[in-house]
Amino acid sequence: MSNDQQKDLAERISEPVVPPEVAREIGLLEQQFVRAEVEQMRRSIVELRPLYEKRAKIVAHPEVQSNFWVRVLSNASGDVDQYITPADAAILGSALKNLTVERFEVNEKGEGEPRSIRLTFEFHTGEANPFFENEKLVKELYWRKQVFTTASGKKRTWDGLVSEPVRINWKKDMDVTKGLLDATCDLFEAEKKGGSRRELPEFKKLQEKLAEVEALERDEDDENDDEDPLGHPSGESFFNFFGYRGSDVTAEQSAAATKEEQEKFEKLLKGESVEDDEADEDEDVDDDFEEIEAFPAGSELAVALAEDLWPNALKYYAQSFEEHPDDFDMDDDEDEDEDDEDEEEEDSRPRKKAKV
Amino acid sequence: MSNDQQKDLAERISEPVVPPEVAREIGLLEQQFVRAEVEQMRRSIVELRPLYEKRAKIVAHPEVQSNFWVRVLSNASGDVDQYITPADAAILGSALKNLTVERFEVNEKGEGEPRSIRLTFEFHTGEANPFFENEKLVKELYWRKQVFTTASGKKRTWDGLVSEPVRINWKKDMDVTKGLLDATCDLFEAEKKGGSRRELPEFKKLQEKLAEVEALERDEDDENDDEDPLGHPSGESFFNFFGYRGSDVTAEQSAAATKEEQEKFEKLLKGESVEDDEADEDEDVDDDFEEIEAFPAGSELAVALAEDLWPNALKYYAQSFEEHPDDFDMDDDEDEDEDDEDEEEEDSRPRKKAKV
Repeated sequence: MSNDQQKDLAERISEPVVPPEVAREIGLLEQQFVRAEVEQMRRSIVELRPLYEKRAKIVAHPEVQSNFWVRVLSNASGDVDQYITPADAAILGSALKNLTVERFEVNEKGEGEPRSIRLTFEFHTGEANPFFENEKLVKELYWRKQVFTTASGKKRTWDGLVSEPVRINWKKDMDVTKGLLDATCDLFEAEKKGGSRRELPEFKKLQEKLAEVEALERDEDDENDDEDPLGHPSGESFFNFFGYRGSDVTAEQSAAATKEEQEKFEKLLKGESVEDDEADEDEDVDDDFEEIEAFPAGSELAVALAEDLWPNALKYYAQSFEEHPDDFDMDDDEDEDEDDEDEEEEDSRPRKKAKV
Repeated sequence: MSNDQQKDLAERISEPVVPPEVAREIGLLEQQFVRAEVEQMRRSIVELRPLYEKRAKIVAHPEVQSNFWVRVLSNASGDVDQYITPADAAILGSALKNLTVERFEVNEKGEGEPRSIRLTFEFHTGEANPFFENEKLVKELYWRKQVFTTASGKKRTWDGLVSEPVRINWKKDMDVTKGLLDATCDLFEAEKKGGSRRELPEFKKLQEKLAEVEALERDEDDENDDEDPLGHPSGESFFNFFGYRGSDVTAEQSAAATKEEQEKFEKLLKGESVEDDEADEDEDVDDDFEEIEAFPAGSELAVALAEDLWPNALKYYAQSFEEHPDDFDMDDDEDEDEDDEDEEEEDSRPRKKAKV
């Protein structure tokens, strides 16, 4: 299940093709699908936990652990792979020790929000990690909901993953984000001390940093020099993922919005009418985060790591012995054609094995 | 869950990197994951059936039904879209009336094989369908398992989707498969009357037809003339999917193989040793179907239709009002770059809506 696909569905279906009452039926049904899926997700999380614990024990075998996650990452699907530059791959390939994904808001009884994700990256330390000091980087993403009012006074709902930025203590000259992650963390910390975001000096600094990185990327695209793994100075890096924020809905706001939506859902189920919250399609929502997000695809990457890389890790590990027998040799993120070919290769495999 | 990813995993992990006992533990664990997923799939199928029935009723609204599945298909992900040529899109766009996906081997109690798939395509008839006579095309794909012995005497297991070819009664000069689907059906029917497949005249005829279509495709790739929707004469068509066979494992063979695997699994669980069935990696399996399959990716397409298009149909329908407001306007299957762009566009949407 991805983050963003299940909202405002009824609103998106236009008259005159579909009458509004049918669009509303479709919207209600989609909500029922989402609720059923979320419920299945809760159960699945509790049921699979013992197997993931068993897997963690097997991965801890010294022969396996030394390169398990590096092999898995090097065989990840394009949904993950596209965000990893050659410079990132060099860091992960030599310094990553372990990765754990947890649906940390679901308790033992299967209660709680199953879409929240905690990613724990463990790294080598000291000389074995020439890149940064952190032994662990823990990125927690909370599934939150928010009801807000547009400029024209209509109510809309947003839900998705939100997170606090996580700082990396880079060693000298090793920051592949070129200061972008630091600038993201600086703004967040200044915000916590109070004051309006847009008036803080850190807001302007982050915007400048973003513009800088964007300009570097453009220059690089022109030169097209994606051969040199450590010569990727643009600051466009997987490690900016640790800066992803998404939005700043609090737990309280989210609980209130969930309650409001639940009441509306129950009314709709009974066939009662609810306040019509169709927003003007062209109405643009004012969004600070569009201007300051160093890793706009953070939610998609977190979901890809949690729903593809994590459950399929054994498969990707096994594949690493077939397709990439050598060391960490990840495709460059810009080589999308190459990725497509890889996928096709994989797709055709069943045919080859398809018979006696 | 896809068809082919969970088999022979332990075999694929090579010494000396991983000791054989650890590889066996990994193989056993992977089997436990697959069993847990299959069990969850069974439950999910039973639970979601009422919602799919409700959806079918909503889709039956005249305003929706007239183009629901056409809109859904035109917004399908690349996993489906890549198999639909412009000529196929023209046919589906004007003649497709309804589509139903059923997990037909799972009964009301949630018993049975959840990976088997029945696809029912309903079409307009008479003058409203200038392409073929069939009112319905029903493609049933059975999940089957087979244990077989390789040339070197080692046992291997295969599992996946198998199916019988379905003939289409094309109207004059309308066969976009250029006789390939007919040749596939002819061979299958000749086989049912008895005789060894390779010695039947229909075997040779099908091989010739396949070579013909392949030559046409090469010519077309050279010319690169994918502009004209009805000028796609290669015979490479979505409609060859109805000819997909996969393998010819019978229900009886599959039941026996499942029983054998179950016994082996229980032994492994108890820590008992089992006959080592590691096959030589380079050993090629003799496979008739590689030579005669008109639609080698049939299993992948069936899974994409059942696991992506079907559950996400409401979402794709809603999208069709945003991205493709006009008629059926499917991307050409060869324009993979364009597809990638579409996906990126979609990925960035949550960001735009991400805040008040």
